[in-house]
Amino acid sequence: MNTQGAAEPLPTAVYTDRMARARAQMEDKDIDLLLLSLGLDLPYISGYNAMPLERLTMLVVPRNGEARLVIPRMEAPRVRPQPGVFEMRPWGELENPVEIVAELAKKAGTIDNVAVGDQMWARFLVELLPLLPDAHFSRADVVTSMRMTKDAAEIAALRAAGAAVDRIAAQLQAGEIDLVGRTEAEVSADLSARIVAEGHQVMNFAIVAAGENAASPHHHPGDRVIAKGEILLCDFGGTMNGYCSDITRCVYLGTPPAEIADAYAVLHEAQHAAVVAGTVGTPCEEVDRAARRIITDAGYGEFFFHRTGHGIGMDAHEDPYMVEGNSLPLAAGHAFSVEPGIYLDGRWGMRLEDIVVATADGPVAMNTANHDLVALDV
Amino acid sequence: MNTQGAAEPLPTAVYTDRMARARAQMEDKDIDLLLLSLGLDLPYISGYNAMPLERLTMLVVPRNGEARLVIPRMEAPRVRPQPGVFEMRPWGELENPVEIVAELAKKAGTIDNVAVGDQMWARFLVELLPLLPDAHFSRADVVTSMRMTKDAAEIAALRAAGAAVDRIAAQLQAGEIDLVGRTEAEVSADLSARIVAEGHQVMNFAIVAAGENAASPHHHPGDRVIAKGEILLCDFGGTMNGYCSDITRCVYLGTPPAEIADAYAVLHEAQHAAVVAGTVGTPCEEVDRAARRIITDAGYGEFFFHRTGHGIGMDAHEDPYMVEGNSLPLAAGHAFSVEPGIYLDGRWGMRLEDIVVATADGPVAMNTANHDLVALDV
Repeated sequence: MNTQGAAEPLPTAVYTDRMARARAQMEDKDIDLLLLSLGLDLPYISGYNAMPLERLTMLVVPRNGEARLVIPRMEAPRVRPQPGVFEMRPWGELENPVEIVAELAKKAGTIDNVAVGDQMWARFLVELLPLLPDAHFSRADVVTSMRMTKDAAEIAALRAAGAAVDRIAAQLQAGEIDLVGRTEAEVSADLSARIVAEGHQVMNFAIVAAGENAASPHHHPGDRVIAKGEILLCDFGGTMNGYCSDITRCVYLGTPPAEIADAYAVLHEAQHAAVVAGTVGTPCEEVDRAARRIITDAGYGEFFFHRTGHGIGMDAHEDPYMVEGNSLPLAAGHAFSVEPGIYLDGRWGMRLEDIVVATADGPVAMNTANHDLVALDV
Repeated sequence: MNTQGAAEPLPTAVYTDRMARARAQMEDKDIDLLLLSLGLDLPYISGYNAMPLERLTMLVVPRNGEARLVIPRMEAPRVRPQPGVFEMRPWGELENPVEIVAELAKKAGTIDNVAVGDQMWARFLVELLPLLPDAHFSRADVVTSMRMTKDAAEIAALRAAGAAVDRIAAQLQAGEIDLVGRTEAEVSADLSARIVAEGHQVMNFAIVAAGENAASPHHHPGDRVIAKGEILLCDFGGTMNGYCSDITRCVYLGTPPAEIADAYAVLHEAQHAAVVAGTVGTPCEEVDRAARRIITDAGYGEFFFHRTGHGIGMDAHEDPYMVEGNSLPLAAGHAFSVEPGIYLDGRWGMRLEDIVVATADGPVAMNTANHDLVALDV
């Protein structure tokens, strides 16, 4: 199964510490029970990544009781034991794992507030609701909020993944990747192969959008043939040793016309302004505003219709989000994308993206590939 | 993003028909509202596959009202319109999409029973619960039950994917894949590349388990080096044009000792018996029993501790399951794996798996690769 580029488990002491901090948050937030299944909160706190299948794997953490990993018996040998962090509760094919979870919950005492992992499958929650009829369910911002702040090892992993996609961006900008005459899908497959070749265990995405298709920010690469005299937007990333990369660069196939060169100059300035705005203590929405102000002042405001960025770490998208309305102040160790864009429907689009980490010494970019709209001689 | 090997959308008439059948099921099952997000129910009924990200995509189907696809504005251009099947409700970055879903639900009238897709992220359901406080939530066995019965085009897709992994199994059995001296992880990567090379768009899994590791049915391939004089279990599959393959074959690196040869003969007989048991009208549990009886009679019953099989189609695992307690009778078009195994903890393991489709003319295997324990001359 795709285990999302999970790294090997870390020493038990790391998980002991993380579990203790999660329990402290449960205390602060008055959460009686934490339930984690699919998603990366589980490996963050336990070192184990659940298989994305119909057999339930769920870590059951009562505020004042021992954590139990409810896991299919046939998958139990996959788990590296973490003594003092959790015990195992393997279940057989003829047992009902949701009932096991409910029984473990009830044994732990009164359960008023249950926090569930974001990416747990709804089928398990739907089956749990009638078994804990008096409980109030909420999102598990216990572990997700811990994951926002990266430690030195995590930043090093983001840096290594960033350097890998920087190398691919350099190949793109040096004209080493054939573009004209190939389809978007072919170039996407080529980028995907390079993502793995450069050291990622998993390819997450490789958007390739030519000309008018670049006006669709999440364009799905198709059989559109790439031609001379147009812009090509490439947004790609993967997971390396458990941490994600994500970069966007555009190239022009020939000499860009003034309209596109001018717009790109605005985009470049806006992206740089948002990167340098990413200092500790700055509210996330100010990072968004820094880019948006410049794009709006240049008259392109209506053509930049998405937020400026998203947090990144074990997940390609995670907290914190650089979006209007998010007043959370950046802290040292927050990692996020800065990726404004300008999109003219039916004509062309452009985006420029780096990953940035807020540090005590100011924002540090994980990507340093050339930020210009490189004109390729095709 | 990984769109799970989604095929191109089919003609609109296919989705018009599927939506009509889903609505008829909603009527039968007294479901007022169907909500589909991540997972393959959505593309089955609409042709569109949601991106697995934090921006909500959700198809809202009121029993007596128009279906609406709530989708991030920036992803709306990805959707191929299906007139008469659904309308779009794009949402902007500063809107709350869960509130939009709740408003659409309330506009449709009284909402008592809500069916939600199995793989929807729990975060969205948790946010929806307080907005529809009087509703009862259940699993959406509306579309999942429709998906069980494959039509001719779907069976053709399963056959093509099956033929692709059969070719890889033949390469394995012919000794064309280097094994001895490589790690499980290296062979897994090799199989993964072949899965794509043989025509799948997505590699789903490639379990490679040597010797004692083969006793762990879902073993995660690691740095264990494969050696002469041991069994090697390979279980692999991918998604081709929207439909999944899944095959398991074991080879022996050298001449198998009598103990392993004898056990394999039992396994082979058990697997064959379960395949031929898969006739229309037979309860699913009888397929399980057909294999289990033979393995148990030979004295290996305690070493076969998982169900005999799972349904397969757009998902690698889906209804119906070949497991004790499932009395559902097989119908023409049901597709499922038949994969008994024998696992001796700490020593060795073996499994033999084909995909089978129940038809009016009897069970038809999608895999025909050699079923023997091929002894490789290493």
